[in-house]
Amino acid sequence: MRTYEIRHEVGIKAEPEGVYQALTDIKKLAGWWTSDTRGDGSEVGGLLEFWFGENCHRFEVVELQPGRLVHWRAKPVDSSDEWVGTEVSFSLATNEKQCYVRFRHSGWHNNDGIFPHTSTKWAVFLLSLKDLLEKGRGQPAPNDVQVNHD
Amino acid sequence: MRTYEIRHEVGIKAEPEGVYQALTDIKKLAGWWTSDTRGDGSEVGGLLEFWFGENCHRFEVVELQPGRLVHWRAKPVDSSDEWVGTEVSFSLATNEKQCYVRFRHSGWHNNDGIFPHTSTKWAVFLLSLKDLLEKGRGQPAPNDVQVNHD
Repeated sequence: MRTYEIRHEVGIKAEPEGVYQALTDIKKLAGWWTSDTRGDGSEVGGLLEFWFGENCHRFEVVELQPGRLVHWRAKPVDSSDEWVGTEVSFSLATNEKQCYVRFRHSGWHNNDGIFPHTSTKWAVFLLSLKDLLEKGRGQPAPNDVQVNHD
Repeated sequence: MRTYEIRHEVGIKAEPEGVYQALTDIKKLAGWWTSDTRGDGSEVGGLLEFWFGENCHRFEVVELQPGRLVHWRAKPVDSSDEWVGTEVSFSLATNEKQCYVRFRHSGWHNNDGIFPHTSTKWAVFLLSLKDLLEKGRGQPAPNDVQVNHD
């Protein structure tokens, strides 16, 4: 079956080790995606929970390559969660100017519904990650940039 | 052949007629995507050019439904332009709170290369469109939010 993928890329003025830490350390994750981040992102097999009010995205860490790759798989929170079975990865590539974060959220069965909104929000949060690393402060939920009036 | 698509969605507190105008009127387009916008976006068959310094994205307007849909097809500027043959559409849907802009940039032959960067930049520009309509001022290039240090 055909699946769909959200892709993004940002370039961050930071060492890959710092970017990797912001993607694996629970306190750093809370600094750019959602303030209410729980669990353990630093070990393969670790479970991560990202809470947005009463909604949660839960992931298992499936692969880690320090300074290079962070890869999660979405786990059930409730049966209506459209993210279950999808995978998120952050691949890092460095040149003399910056560390690129190449982002994938793959395994979607369609690209309608919440897919377009999710794509826009990922851009917002990756720019928040960039701000955290470059300016020392991100805009994690609930202080994230709003893309609609829902 | 399989093709790939960038999708986004923003919700804007504005009438669909105003959003439609911001997607078809050359002066309004210059208020959110790039200040150097040329051509005619108000008629099917019109040609639009969006200049970013020495780089240009050129489109033909292929379909217009006032207050509902704007659809462009990328035309050659030079032979290295990866956008040629791709299509961009903005579909508008309104509820009591907002006008949703559902965005597609379709017809990509792969989703590597410039695709992830382009996806992130479209999110930035759609939020600029939202700001133009809600706050009276967008952030068109060259004053757009930077997503890297290239």
